[in-house]
Amino acid sequence: MKIALVGIGKIAVDQHVPAIAASDDWELAATVSRHGSVEGVEAFDDFDAMLAARSDIRVVSLCLPPVPRFEYAAKAIRAGRHVMLEKPPGATLAECHMLERMAHAHGVSIYATWHSREADKVSAAKKWLSDKTLNSLHVTWKEDVRRWHPGQEWVWEPGGMGVFDPGINALSIVTEILPDDVHLKSAYLDIPSNKQTPIGAALEFVHPTGAAVTADFDWRQTGDQIWMIEAVTEQGTLTLTDGGARILIDGIEDAVQSENPLHGEYPNLYAKMARLVTNGGVDMDLRPMVHVSDALALGRRTAVEPFYE
Amino acid sequence: MKIALVGIGKIAVDQHVPAIAASDDWELAATVSRHGSVEGVEAFDDFDAMLAARSDIRVVSLCLPPVPRFEYAAKAIRAGRHVMLEKPPGATLAECHMLERMAHAHGVSIYATWHSREADKVSAAKKWLSDKTLNSLHVTWKEDVRRWHPGQEWVWEPGGMGVFDPGINALSIVTEILPDDVHLKSAYLDIPSNKQTPIGAALEFVHPTGAAVTADFDWRQTGDQIWMIEAVTEQGTLTLTDGGARILIDGIEDAVQSENPLHGEYPNLYAKMARLVTNGGVDMDLRPMVHVSDALALGRRTAVEPFYE
Repeated sequence: MKIALVGIGKIAVDQHVPAIAASDDWELAATVSRHGSVEGVEAFDDFDAMLAARSDIRVVSLCLPPVPRFEYAAKAIRAGRHVMLEKPPGATLAECHMLERMAHAHGVSIYATWHSREADKVSAAKKWLSDKTLNSLHVTWKEDVRRWHPGQEWVWEPGGMGVFDPGINALSIVTEILPDDVHLKSAYLDIPSNKQTPIGAALEFVHPTGAAVTADFDWRQTGDQIWMIEAVTEQGTLTLTDGGARILIDGIEDAVQSENPLHGEYPNLYAKMARLVTNGGVDMDLRPMVHVSDALALGRRTAVEPFYE
Repeated sequence: MKIALVGIGKIAVDQHVPAIAASDDWELAATVSRHGSVEGVEAFDDFDAMLAARSDIRVVSLCLPPVPRFEYAAKAIRAGRHVMLEKPPGATLAECHMLERMAHAHGVSIYATWHSREADKVSAAKKWLSDKTLNSLHVTWKEDVRRWHPGQEWVWEPGGMGVFDPGINALSIVTEILPDDVHLKSAYLDIPSNKQTPIGAALEFVHPTGAAVTADFDWRQTGDQIWMIEAVTEQGTLTLTDGGARILIDGIEDAVQSENPLHGEYPNLYAKMARLVTNGGVDMDLRPMVHVSDALALGRRTAVEPFYE
């Protein structure tokens, strides 16, 4: 199937282009970008022009930042194209709901991707937790913003989500692996006094059986970087670490078999998109974004020292 | 039909009790409250005890504040009771989604009420706008917090929503009367330096045909109180004022016929709940809350002078 990639920035070059190239399902048939392009692929700088010129391309993958993404997605759907969205699927929840309704109305597929859910050991964690009794789950997601987002001033602007930009990856895994849905009970947000978005967040969720479900997100972590989820159950303790790449049960590495074909986060996303288009499905799971929105809407804000890069 | 009222505070006494009393559909069969009660009606102070003792009561109306409401609603649904929710339907969007799924799973009705939608002229405004071409819509919702929320410290706490507590009423009308859905483009929030929630907000929405849809909410209004929505169309200007109680077309009062039976906001809500239960429906329109959540999550915050009552 032919696909067009829109927004040729770092994530497109590092992840999307190689994943498409390695796939038997997809042929990268066009790019749309003001600056970037991919060698040997027809390059457009105008999205409308691409839609008009290339009616043979039925699928569009959007790797633009969340704020302008809605307009592109809406145009693609109105033009009868299937749409794949980088995370988060939009700037607002209202626009995501609207895209889902539009996709149904136009009979096209839409896929809100969550790449961290495709990390190697996430499906094994989900399977292991499916028949366990949960006592507690704690997320520790601590990284150095200076190292991972150098010069990216937009993460501190409204809509940039601050530490929820990585934190939403953790929440996409939690909502995938837990058999029961949770909802936010309280959130504490540390906001640098010269910024709009949090540099740290502590969340507490309500779990239907009363398990303690909590998360600590921090962008001030120097030294070792931590992307870890620990679930304590009646039947043992699961540790998912390195962002989902490693799994331990009671401290023993790979004690459970991985279900994933192990070909990487973005190749898995593109394989899922191929199945979705073939089967005519819609996959718009907004739960990670709902939790972030709930936390930003309800969180108790504390001003902390200003942040300078 | 027998109904139990949970949370006997000011809104219950002023609105819910008279509306139920005036209705041919309903009989107030029990109350649940730590402090309040209604003369001649069996009073419980424990919700579980009421559910256990009164299996003849199939419908529960919850007028508690949003934060504790989820637990009551979940218990009621699990006990097979139909549930009616005061606005906003919960503290978080995640819990509202969960209640909706639970209601479907248990085969009961749930109704997220928006009382302002039942104001006398809202349905006339909806009908008039249904075939017009919108150029702009502006909401002006300005009231004096000292007058309407005396001593209510919770409105300034996370989850209390600040000026969105009245503002969500305006948004419930806007989402009802506009034929097209909008989504938030930007929000500016004025936060008193000693509080957590906004005292003022300016919102701008994206409309599918490019109409300018904006809102100004302010809690610092002394003198005349303003609850007004003005929609400028190619075919004339609609003004809905006094919170939906008055309608003008090109400045002429009552130029259009009201569709409402005119028996008041809460009587209309209870009439709708009766139909919902009879027909086995679910009415969980979360759009007003999604817009507030989007605004609180994405809004640019400015600290303004501290607020003291």
